[in-house]
Amino acid sequence: MDKDSQVYKIRHSLAHVLADAVLELYPHAKCGSGPATEEGFFYGFDFSGGETPGEDDLKTIEKKMRHLLKQSVVPEQETITTEEALERFKESPYKVEILKEKGEKNNNEISVYTVGKFSDPCSGPHVAATKEINKKAFRLERIAGAYWKGDEKNPMLTRIYGLAFEDAEGLAEYDKMQKEAKERDHRKIGKELDLFTFSDLVGSGLPLFTPKGTLLRNLVVDKIYSIQEKYGYERVWIPHIAKKDLYKKSGHWEKFGEELFKVKGKTDVEFVMKPMNCPHHTQIYASKPRSYKDLPIRYTEATTNYRDEQPGELLGLSRVRSLTQDDGHVFCTMEQVENEVQNIIDVIRSFYTSLGMFNDETYWVSLSVRDQKLQDEYLGESSVWDTAENILEEVAKKENLNYKRIEGEAAFYGPKLDFMFKDAIGREWQLGTVQLDLNMPGRFGLEYTDKDGTKKTPVMIHRAIAGSLERFLSVIIEHFAGNFPLWLSPEQIRVIPVADTHTEYATQVFNELKAIGIRATMDDSSESMGKKIRVAKTDKLPYFVVVGDKEVEAKNVTLESRNGDSKQISLSELGNHLLAEIETKTI
Amino acid sequence: MDKDSQVYKIRHSLAHVLADAVLELYPHAKCGSGPATEEGFFYGFDFSGGETPGEDDLKTIEKKMRHLLKQSVVPEQETITTEEALERFKESPYKVEILKEKGEKNNNEISVYTVGKFSDPCSGPHVAATKEINKKAFRLERIAGAYWKGDEKNPMLTRIYGLAFEDAEGLAEYDKMQKEAKERDHRKIGKELDLFTFSDLVGSGLPLFTPKGTLLRNLVVDKIYSIQEKYGYERVWIPHIAKKDLYKKSGHWEKFGEELFKVKGKTDVEFVMKPMNCPHHTQIYASKPRSYKDLPIRYTEATTNYRDEQPGELLGLSRVRSLTQDDGHVFCTMEQVENEVQNIIDVIRSFYTSLGMFNDETYWVSLSVRDQKLQDEYLGESSVWDTAENILEEVAKKENLNYKRIEGEAAFYGPKLDFMFKDAIGREWQLGTVQLDLNMPGRFGLEYTDKDGTKKTPVMIHRAIAGSLERFLSVIIEHFAGNFPLWLSPEQIRVIPVADTHTEYATQVFNELKAIGIRATMDDSSESMGKKIRVAKTDKLPYFVVVGDKEVEAKNVTLESRNGDSKQISLSELGNHLLAEIETKTI
Repeated sequence: MDKDSQVYKIRHSLAHVLADAVLELYPHAKCGSGPATEEGFFYGFDFSGGETPGEDDLKTIEKKMRHLLKQSVVPEQETITTEEALERFKESPYKVEILKEKGEKNNNEISVYTVGKFSDPCSGPHVAATKEINKKAFRLERIAGAYWKGDEKNPMLTRIYGLAFEDAEGLAEYDKMQKEAKERDHRKIGKELDLFTFSDLVGSGLPLFTPKGTLLRNLVVDKIYSIQEKYGYERVWIPHIAKKDLYKKSGHWEKFGEELFKVKGKTDVEFVMKPMNCPHHTQIYASKPRSYKDLPIRYTEATTNYRDEQPGELLGLSRVRSLTQDDGHVFCTMEQVENEVQNIIDVIRSFYTSLGMFNDETYWVSLSVRDQKLQDEYLGESSVWDTAENILEEVAKKENLNYKRIEGEAAFYGPKLDFMFKDAIGREWQLGTVQLDLNMPGRFGLEYTDKDGTKKTPVMIHRAIAGSLERFLSVIIEHFAGNFPLWLSPEQIRVIPVADTHTEYATQVFNELKAIGIRATMDDSSESMGKKIRVAKTDKLPYFVVVGDKEVEAKNVTLESRNGDSKQISLSELGNHLLAEIETKTI
Repeated sequence: MDKDSQVYKIRHSLAHVLADAVLELYPHAKCGSGPATEEGFFYGFDFSGGETPGEDDLKTIEKKMRHLLKQSVVPEQETITTEEALERFKESPYKVEILKEKGEKNNNEISVYTVGKFSDPCSGPHVAATKEINKKAFRLERIAGAYWKGDEKNPMLTRIYGLAFEDAEGLAEYDKMQKEAKERDHRKIGKELDLFTFSDLVGSGLPLFTPKGTLLRNLVVDKIYSIQEKYGYERVWIPHIAKKDLYKKSGHWEKFGEELFKVKGKTDVEFVMKPMNCPHHTQIYASKPRSYKDLPIRYTEATTNYRDEQPGELLGLSRVRSLTQDDGHVFCTMEQVENEVQNIIDVIRSFYTSLGMFNDETYWVSLSVRDQKLQDEYLGESSVWDTAENILEEVAKKENLNYKRIEGEAAFYGPKLDFMFKDAIGREWQLGTVQLDLNMPGRFGLEYTDKDGTKKTPVMIHRAIAGSLERFLSVIIEHFAGNFPLWLSPEQIRVIPVADTHTEYATQVFNELKAIGIRATMDDSSESMGKKIRVAKTDKLPYFVVVGDKEVEAKNVTLESRNGDSKQISLSELGNHLLAEIETKTI
């Protein structure tokens, strides 16, 4: 968040007003710290010296804040020495800790802001006067425990969170979005549409996909495979474990050893569940001698990685222990990188266009390059990095990508393009990625024989289109609120005969749709028409057709869409109508 | 092997003649034991008291055997007491061990056979006289160490192996088959055709599939999916690990705990790499209430299991640590079993027909039922077993299966149909299987609500069409010697322009084939024609077409097949010709 924005100042000042209010009501409270957040503010207190407020007390605290805000106050700034500050704030061990750190960094100068009766070491900025705070645009929201500085060895403080915006509309919009997000929650929709499940016996963070959810997965993966096929990607297959040695060689063991699942059998060999696929794929490359004529070599595979996330961090499909990557690795020469990256961008563009998500307003690309000041932290020669970064920027320009150059966001092994997408309710997700790797091919001794007979090391490109499939599904389930585009709907259309006498014609409709590859179903159950139509709607089907006397006679169907449209269409046109929509429409 | 067959007697007598010869040449040898085998015989000796023969000495030993066989000898049988036998064979600690065991079992009576100068505790049978042994139909083959009784705590004996048949033709046929088997070895062909590889860093028994091998895997799996789709099978997806609790509940932990790969992360939770898929699939079934109207529910998934095989037992794709099952589970009522089993048989018949393997001469089915005498060892009520066994036998009859009822071969949880196939060189493999399970649904508390509102337990059917995909691939690579049927060939046809001037037309041919889904490639490299054609042949392509002046002018191609056929065919017919073969021909 921009620190100079008015909304930041409002939130920051409100954190101080909150502390002022809390200290009046709970004089024994010791202050931790209280910043602005993405949607408001919080302040953390140590209430261990007396009563600790609960959710029920938020109303009283908020009332006190509103009371303090009745009079407009001008936040006042002063600069004092660390010694003076330590003396002034000696009551709170947390402040003392912060002041010692700050003083060292800031040449023994401490900035202090006073808002009302409450003083706090703080470098601002704040509103010019508290009358700028719209009293209809904030409210206290919740109370939660959090370790001081996020470290579980420190004491647990009590954080009071508030929401705050510039105006009441901002707050109303946030509330609306929260309500929307709750209604779109992929765990809720996943259950309603029967897409996936969890089992206590299998374990948390390990989703099991039902037939409909598996179809959804496969439709995504197949779409990506089919788009990229023309660029020469070939599927490979690897097991989900490998010896620890593979990750020692790749460097992952040293960096991520703690996060890996360790596997032991009867023998002494130490195995690991794969946390990524690149090391395995290098071994397929390395399985025979390669010539410059063989390059680029492009492997692709949707395969599952395993990461030992803490149980408390797991969340539906968003954060899982078994995550399937739609992975791809290209081995090529530096001269070929430009063309390969261009092709990958084509695939990303084509895929997200099919979801209606690739518009300048809904995506941007982070061209993640080195932090020039920290060149030592990146592996590889600086001149090679320059070349690689330039190639990516050139391609981004040529492809008219909506990109920003972000310094310091490169991986330690190379620069990358990260594709960020906004969902239907404005949340941003990093999904596709293209990463140059100037390190791993060398570590694994990969080589090819060049035209002149010398051995050279190829460049490696890592790319993912959807990223982690589970996380991607959580994003698009929420983005579409379960109303998937026709091509992505596990069940595309349902045929509903009004009575038994219409079953024959309904079966004909159903068979004709199946014959051209439409995922049709038929509901010839004995339920009432009303019930059948209600079910078709709660199943979020793109279409259903009701077939009664009129339709049998006219040899047509009444095509009902989930957005309420309804039209007569002849049986012969129905299939083409659906096929055309599958081909062209994104939602 | 039938113990009363002449070939068994010949092999058994030869083992004795071998021992006779060895004792003459190596008087210090102590005899272990020496049975007939599937292709001959062996005898195990302890040579630790003196010189141990090596491969080079086999000729001398064989010569001695032939010398002994010059005179026809009549094997003589006598019955003595254990005490007498212990006295007579006291020189060999191995004989003493055997005699003690035998004596206890056989009422203190020991049968002894004497062939020439060599006596052995042995219950026969033997040839009537050694002149029945055809001296052109046996030879010593190899020498190898083996622990006494296969237990590594016992001393290592030296086994001398021989081959033996009734006549010289038998031996010649065996030699031919061995040569064929060596040429067809899937590890050799897998390397030549670049189908899969192993990496020391990944670990033994963990194959990595290259693009061509992955295509081969997927062609098999997709074929099975497409055949069974019409029977209502739906794909599901499960992670490759689960908590140990899942296998405690299923009973696998108790039975196979030792064979499982254990997985540990940061937390205390004990995970296991899945050794089978049924327990996971029960959890998808159990994820929501089921009604009789929902049954049968049919899940299918090609997914990988992990078993901790000993490194010494691993062999190419035949025996691996990561094995992918084309698994399927049906949950249904007992009344529905017959129809479901019939459908599964249809799928197996259709799949193996597409490989040309489903003929009465090349397959048979083991109807594996209980051993009536050991009813207590099987789980579930006897009457339910009777019903289940009868259903399987009824279906086998109705479907005209070439089946044999084999008592005692049922699984502990239910009877099954195991499909056995002979490969091109006569080796038999168990591949497809249909197993009724009367146990697991109850263990997991699976249920459905029946018409009358009561809760009932469904029957579960386990089924695999190819079995373990890796093992299946090893079988068909060897069966076809890499010359796969057109539908299963990763690369179906290659277009080879004679010179640069033919590239344009060659590209047209290539594009037209690609457009109709033929897996075509083009070899427009600068190699010589001879080289290109040789490569096409060693790549075992079903077809290649050479395109030169004549073809360009006539708008046709010369279609060369791997079996040497060659014919002119118009470009417009070429595609249909190939599509028709894909549809109908199996090889």
